[in-house]
Amino acid sequence: MSPAGPGRFISLEGGEGAGKSTQVRALGQALRARGLTVVETREPGGSPGAEAIRRLLLEGTADRWTARTEALLFAAARADHVARTIRPALEAGQWVLTDRFLDSSLAYQGGADSIGAEAIRMLHTIGSEGLLPDRTLLLTLPLAEATDRAAARDAGAADRFGARDPDYHARVSDAFLALAKADPARFRIVDASGPAATVTQRLLDAIDAPA
Amino acid sequence: MSPAGPGRFISLEGGEGAGKSTQVRALGQALRARGLTVVETREPGGSPGAEAIRRLLLEGTADRWTARTEALLFAAARADHVARTIRPALEAGQWVLTDRFLDSSLAYQGGADSIGAEAIRMLHTIGSEGLLPDRTLLLTLPLAEATDRAAARDAGAADRFGARDPDYHARVSDAFLALAKADPARFRIVDASGPAATVTQRLLDAIDAPA
Repeated sequence: MSPAGPGRFISLEGGEGAGKSTQVRALGQALRARGLTVVETREPGGSPGAEAIRRLLLEGTADRWTARTEALLFAAARADHVARTIRPALEAGQWVLTDRFLDSSLAYQGGADSIGAEAIRMLHTIGSEGLLPDRTLLLTLPLAEATDRAAARDAGAADRFGARDPDYHARVSDAFLALAKADPARFRIVDASGPAATVTQRLLDAIDAPA
Repeated sequence: MSPAGPGRFISLEGGEGAGKSTQVRALGQALRARGLTVVETREPGGSPGAEAIRRLLLEGTADRWTARTEALLFAAARADHVARTIRPALEAGQWVLTDRFLDSSLAYQGGADSIGAEAIRMLHTIGSEGLLPDRTLLLTLPLAEATDRAAARDAGAADRFGARDPDYHARVSDAFLALAKADPARFRIVDASGPAATVTQRLLDAIDAPA
């Protein structure tokens, strides 16, 4: 087994139904097979404190929190996740794979009806010293397929983010693509259609590609 | 009974043992006797969401949260308190008396060993659109008296902010006085020694004084 190099921080992003959590597990397995130590995690959550904040975010009625309070709670959960889980792992030379990170806040809460991307980036600077992934893998699906997959799942899992209007997935998808375009060194856009193993191989290729 | 004028937002600040919560109740009673509608509230907390965040802040071990996460949680609680309790009351022409507000975050978390006053003010801008009290009443006590009163109370109420070192009360007191000096139009410094009714009269005089 080769000695581990420095840790790397990889985020998987994309709308609901893109298969992020499945792919985090598959990537973790593939990277461990290379002798790497891999931490698989997710947001909101990923540390005991952040999971407690996650419960505040997901429980209750849709209007429990204003957009401003919600953005602060997401930033607080991310600050705890970074301080307690992500930074210690990276400093120990481990790899970190996270299902969602800052870009989800920007895509979901950074829109015109919310507090804006600049405020969300400022919260990330204050809370997490602006830590960004070394690579962000944006999983994309043809919109009809993503909507079908998400609808199938939403039917079984109700939380305060509730049901989505027909344009919702399109807006989120556009927001993620704009983020990827604005930071091509960090992002790789990966087609999430087809068999899971095929998608995993695409993601490994995107991780291995030079910056 | 005269018709109520526009609502006013009054905060009481000061170190532990200065008698803030007692004086909020006494002031509320005195102002109601003038025909005003008065909301008495406190931080962290003051709305159902903020009280839930308060529990996260006070429970657990002293190192449960980093300074950054803690500052975001305080700002989130304040944002909910402002949106759900304070702004609606002011818009309805009511008076709001709060036991602690932004200045407590600045005095307790804004010091050199924390994230700094500029970051805390930025969180307040993002979370609460920078809402400030119309008047802030800073209750001051000779340091020995404050330490005695706080020690008597701390003995019965343990939370994760725990015991204080001997210089702690002096540092907090200095921080509050510096805040008052920097914003003399908003602050009034009020001597909190002597009988409670005497202190209440001093506070009423400070509320009635022109800006």
